[in-house]
Amino acid sequence: MKMGVAGKEVRLGIIGLGGRGRGQMKTLLSMPDVQVTCVCDLYEDRVQAGIDICREMKGNEPVGTKRYREVLTRDDVDAVVVMTSWTTHLHIATEALRAGKRVAMEVGGAASVDECWQLVRTSEETGIPVMLLENCCYNREEMALLNMVKQGLFGELVHCAGGYQHDLREEIGNGDLARHYRQDNFLNRNGDLYPTHELGPIAKMLNINRGNRMLTLTSTASKARGLSAWLKERRGDSELSKAHVTQGDIVTTVIKCAHGETIVLTHDCTLPRPYSRGLRVQGTKGIYMEDNQSIFLEGKTQPKFDEWLEKNRAELEKNHKGENMDEVIERLRNSAPDWLHEWEKFDGYLKEYEHPLWKVYQEFGLRGGHGGMDYLVLRAFVESVQNQTEPPIDVYDAASWLVITCLSEQSVAMGGAPVAIPDFTDGNWICREAEEPNAYGLSKVFWEKFED
Amino acid sequence: MKMGVAGKEVRLGIIGLGGRGRGQMKTLLSMPDVQVTCVCDLYEDRVQAGIDICREMKGNEPVGTKRYREVLTRDDVDAVVVMTSWTTHLHIATEALRAGKRVAMEVGGAASVDECWQLVRTSEETGIPVMLLENCCYNREEMALLNMVKQGLFGELVHCAGGYQHDLREEIGNGDLARHYRQDNFLNRNGDLYPTHELGPIAKMLNINRGNRMLTLTSTASKARGLSAWLKERRGDSELSKAHVTQGDIVTTVIKCAHGETIVLTHDCTLPRPYSRGLRVQGTKGIYMEDNQSIFLEGKTQPKFDEWLEKNRAELEKNHKGENMDEVIERLRNSAPDWLHEWEKFDGYLKEYEHPLWKVYQEFGLRGGHGGMDYLVLRAFVESVQNQTEPPIDVYDAASWLVITCLSEQSVAMGGAPVAIPDFTDGNWICREAEEPNAYGLSKVFWEKFED
Repeated sequence: MKMGVAGKEVRLGIIGLGGRGRGQMKTLLSMPDVQVTCVCDLYEDRVQAGIDICREMKGNEPVGTKRYREVLTRDDVDAVVVMTSWTTHLHIATEALRAGKRVAMEVGGAASVDECWQLVRTSEETGIPVMLLENCCYNREEMALLNMVKQGLFGELVHCAGGYQHDLREEIGNGDLARHYRQDNFLNRNGDLYPTHELGPIAKMLNINRGNRMLTLTSTASKARGLSAWLKERRGDSELSKAHVTQGDIVTTVIKCAHGETIVLTHDCTLPRPYSRGLRVQGTKGIYMEDNQSIFLEGKTQPKFDEWLEKNRAELEKNHKGENMDEVIERLRNSAPDWLHEWEKFDGYLKEYEHPLWKVYQEFGLRGGHGGMDYLVLRAFVESVQNQTEPPIDVYDAASWLVITCLSEQSVAMGGAPVAIPDFTDGNWICREAEEPNAYGLSKVFWEKFED
Repeated sequence: MKMGVAGKEVRLGIIGLGGRGRGQMKTLLSMPDVQVTCVCDLYEDRVQAGIDICREMKGNEPVGTKRYREVLTRDDVDAVVVMTSWTTHLHIATEALRAGKRVAMEVGGAASVDECWQLVRTSEETGIPVMLLENCCYNREEMALLNMVKQGLFGELVHCAGGYQHDLREEIGNGDLARHYRQDNFLNRNGDLYPTHELGPIAKMLNINRGNRMLTLTSTASKARGLSAWLKERRGDSELSKAHVTQGDIVTTVIKCAHGETIVLTHDCTLPRPYSRGLRVQGTKGIYMEDNQSIFLEGKTQPKFDEWLEKNRAELEKNHKGENMDEVIERLRNSAPDWLHEWEKFDGYLKEYEHPLWKVYQEFGLRGGHGGMDYLVLRAFVESVQNQTEPPIDVYDAASWLVITCLSEQSVAMGGAPVAIPDFTDGNWICREAEEPNAYGLSKVFWEKFED
């Protein structure tokens, strides 16, 4: 396996060394041009685990600390990665900017609108960028779909849907009470706690903050039954089984965009189900659905039409004698009635419209967690630090995606009342340059090195 | 084919003889105990077509009229079936009650809250029932799922979703301008114009108006692009191509119920797509999805677990030496972590939990349109007339399902503001008897006759 990708060395400080933090740190340490010089967690055992991982993987002994402010002030830290509990990401990231450090943070959701503004204002004042590590933006299917959207295969986009649909009862319910931020959130809040899967990829498709923006949302929560039923059944002996769960099992959030598109988000984490982000992408020319792994593109995917054509070809030729049959068939195909519409499997399209990044990534060899997407999102951050460029998922993306959580809580609390989504760009979304359709955040350094 | 099912003869007046009206009339006329004595439509050619059908199928010559009031006052009409344009159903049905006739009406959506109240009050004052002909309640999959819900397979229901997702661009766009009610609605309204597929079957599963009720909704419409793009492309020469389309392509409606369940409805009729009602049924024990024709039931459908077990059985037996292995495996299966959750195809469940009505219907032989469900819903009406019983989809169902349309329009118009759904039962929903889990509206007469 080629591992030759390397730029200028980046020295990172890692804040937050729970399961996710350690996993992501390992992926970062697998990069030859990354060093971790400082590790931080509130728990000493985790700090030690972080030091041990660095020693094993890189042979160096990073400084360990329980105080994140120590990480932010160190000269041997070029940039910081925040992977703490959800409600601390924005505060720590804002402080990192004030301390002059580039910062990346794991996903989650904001607890107040103001903490999002604080991040935006601090980034603007200091001129230092922030990156949100929304890995699903880098997943293979989502990137191929982005590619298809940019090439106009769906026509004008009208509607998208997606969600975080992941049975977390066991993770929440078996967790260690005192150290489990997910548990804390599910026992106290009620809203879309984890909106950025699948809002991130959808926002990129809809050019949010770059020619479009999210205007309003409504959010409705179902009753909360799944987690408490599970706790009673499996952990009847524990204090936790008596806990009152506030988080509704299904939270449905409907977002309206400036150019008229709608986005439906589903938060579904406390009922038994297979994992799905349930992505749906729909425009004037077709529709993609993750849940049946299928696509329908007008005039393109019509297997039923072909079947019909085979049966009726002779008669058709008789009726259209003297005409150009290819033209006749093409005309018919494009105007095929709705009962000839049929889903086609997405596999073929995935290969045909593979994102350029994923083409080279597959040659390079997938690595890191979650089917390879973790590596890509982390690499994009590392390269933005090396090259001192804007990260592909920037402070406006971060603020507008994360703010959905607290706005969703507000709407749920007010019986589904619509809530305005702030324009964190102060009107600049109208003129901000649309992203390169095929760059999507990894600089050429990565691929040139690989190509060498 | 056995056709021996017959009770007391029912003489029907048919109001509305468009494509749907004529189709449903043919299904009614296929029943040996049904006569059509009067046919009515605003257009003379349709009246004549109706008379011709009766002559061909039954050998009688019904009275033909352009005035629906004439149908309502005739002594040779026992009951009336209203299959006119959407915005006239409720008015004509209410007048039928005032004239002392039992009435069934095709689906659609209400244009005002008050016309729903008028229907309810008139039915209460006259003591005459109304039936809504929501055929999807009688579809095979929906009835099997109702059966499963009533048997508790999904645990406590928490969330349902569904919609009318049907590419109607061709039907609307190629229609005759002056005579096309769907066209009129899409060019002037904006909301969920056609909510009862799939709200009807969902409402039955959630015991709406019988122990539960719908409290509020929010509704959000996307921009309207699909139909106008289609008209420009295909009918550029016509006046219609210049028409302004008001109806958003995708309207998402989120309903909250008294017992905390949420229902998400999608109206999706002007973008290219295969047909789907997108039913989703979700509870504390599992989930069904129409779109992948799959189901997951905790502790029941875990094919991945079986795979895992096969690979790890030897080690498991070593670790649990001396224990009852069946018990060990059962315990493990029930607590399998979420990554072992996997969809299972619904086919097997459909057969295992086939609704009793569908078992006998399949022996009897499916007939009528839409995969057989039209026949069942019409038969339920005919039998409720014969036996002078309450129809299975009654005036409270009709009012509360149809009112969703105008409430959705209100919410869309007010930027997604929540709107209260009236309690048409005046509080009686709390104590109204829950339906028999397996009867669902067809009287025994039908099956006894068949069994003879």
